[in-house]
Amino acid sequence: MSQDWQRLNDEVTALIKEARANVLEKMSDPLTVNEKTNRKDLVTNVDKSNEQFLIAGIRRIDPTAHILGEEGFGDDLKSLDGRVWIVDPIDGTMNFVKQRDNFAIMIGIYQDGEGQLGYIDDVMNDVLYYGGPQLGGVWANDERLSAPANLALADGLIGASGPLVIHDVAQMHKIIHVSAGMRVYGSAGIEMINIMRGKTLGYISHLKPWDIAAGQILLNTLGVRVSAIDGKPLNMLSSNLVLVATEKAQRDILQIEEDDVSL
Amino acid sequence: MSQDWQRLNDEVTALIKEARANVLEKMSDPLTVNEKTNRKDLVTNVDKSNEQFLIAGIRRIDPTAHILGEEGFGDDLKSLDGRVWIVDPIDGTMNFVKQRDNFAIMIGIYQDGEGQLGYIDDVMNDVLYYGGPQLGGVWANDERLSAPANLALADGLIGASGPLVIHDVAQMHKIIHVSAGMRVYGSAGIEMINIMRGKTLGYISHLKPWDIAAGQILLNTLGVRVSAIDGKPLNMLSSNLVLVATEKAQRDILQIEEDDVSL
Repeated sequence: MSQDWQRLNDEVTALIKEARANVLEKMSDPLTVNEKTNRKDLVTNVDKSNEQFLIAGIRRIDPTAHILGEEGFGDDLKSLDGRVWIVDPIDGTMNFVKQRDNFAIMIGIYQDGEGQLGYIDDVMNDVLYYGGPQLGGVWANDERLSAPANLALADGLIGASGPLVIHDVAQMHKIIHVSAGMRVYGSAGIEMINIMRGKTLGYISHLKPWDIAAGQILLNTLGVRVSAIDGKPLNMLSSNLVLVATEKAQRDILQIEEDDVSL
Repeated sequence: MSQDWQRLNDEVTALIKEARANVLEKMSDPLTVNEKTNRKDLVTNVDKSNEQFLIAGIRRIDPTAHILGEEGFGDDLKSLDGRVWIVDPIDGTMNFVKQRDNFAIMIGIYQDGEGQLGYIDDVMNDVLYYGGPQLGGVWANDERLSAPANLALADGLIGASGPLVIHDVAQMHKIIHVSAGMRVYGSAGIEMINIMRGKTLGYISHLKPWDIAAGQILLNTLGVRVSAIDGKPLNMLSSNLVLVATEKAQRDILQIEEDDVSL
């Protein structure tokens, strides 16, 4: 790894720690909560202020950065050329609002479309997950993570988003039936952490780029597959129906999807 | 509260702490996992040994105790007369097996059918939730818990069991639609803790007596309603489709159930 990437990592780590402290401080005041597209799609004053804080920090670290942010304070990106930072200031905003727990701050750094460094901060547990090809591994604070076991779908739990389960999108019911069971945690970041920790073997959800940018980098580094539900690469400039899974479980799930199409 | 109940509480607390230490020690060895009714209904050597340990301890504490235990090492109860101890040695066995996290040790103590003291030990977080009418409150280790906010269904997250959601039992889809969202954690004990902490406003699941015995006592003490899905009292000698909810959310959910019947 180059010294440049190491220095970049040090700077991003420091930035996220500062962002976390700001978020915790703001949580002691009442939140201002607004609806975005509907009453289950929320944004708070903390999402907004934290995105502004992170973007200002990124521009100091990397003045030529292209930045894609959930709350729209970044750039209007048309391509992934150059160095692109993808920012989710509060992932799991509903959990943040209703639980004051189980949410994350996330940043993914891409270079010409290739993931380089990813960061998921589990704010309430005070654990920063970070790593990527430029660091040659993934860490949880000071602990280096080993790759999760390559479980078949039948041998583990699968995370899912509630609406996909209720509407049985993409054969969710069959996938859950084959698995050992489903879990719903309400935050893509928390789901990614559970997969890194081997607590679930995968996750299926409709996601925006900022929901999956960091997780894709971290999980790929640990040998976990991240793709669209048809196995193809994600489009990091739009929404995707995302399938995250161990290699074996990905194969099992893609087979279920294929059987569906052939009916 | 009588000194007898205080002494009982001290003894049960000590017993559960010892049981927890045993479980943690056994977790460093490979588990022996067997299926009960199907491949998603598991029992391990630790469920069994911990139930035997707890029952032996209960018989020392209360020689005339009637004991109902999940794994069948207790008594064959025909009534709730006298002092009845209801024991779940590992609640959330699938989580225990697949996650090594998010499971609980639970004991509920009933006197002539009335809940007196409840215990839910969140093993991996080392927090023992205990209390009931005989203690006049609920504690999480040394912290006394206040009653969770009396949220309406629309204002909070609802916990559910996966199969109820998939099969849309008891209007689950409508209930989830009205709520702020659903979560699935895979352990009744962990769900009860989330409700006590105000992280979810309720939980709906098919439960056996040992899944709900402790939670019913703790939650009632905090003003949260525990009933069958039709609002009637639970039968603590059989399975129930259980509705746990804040007072307002219970009313909202019972209304949804009633509308269903009137169709």
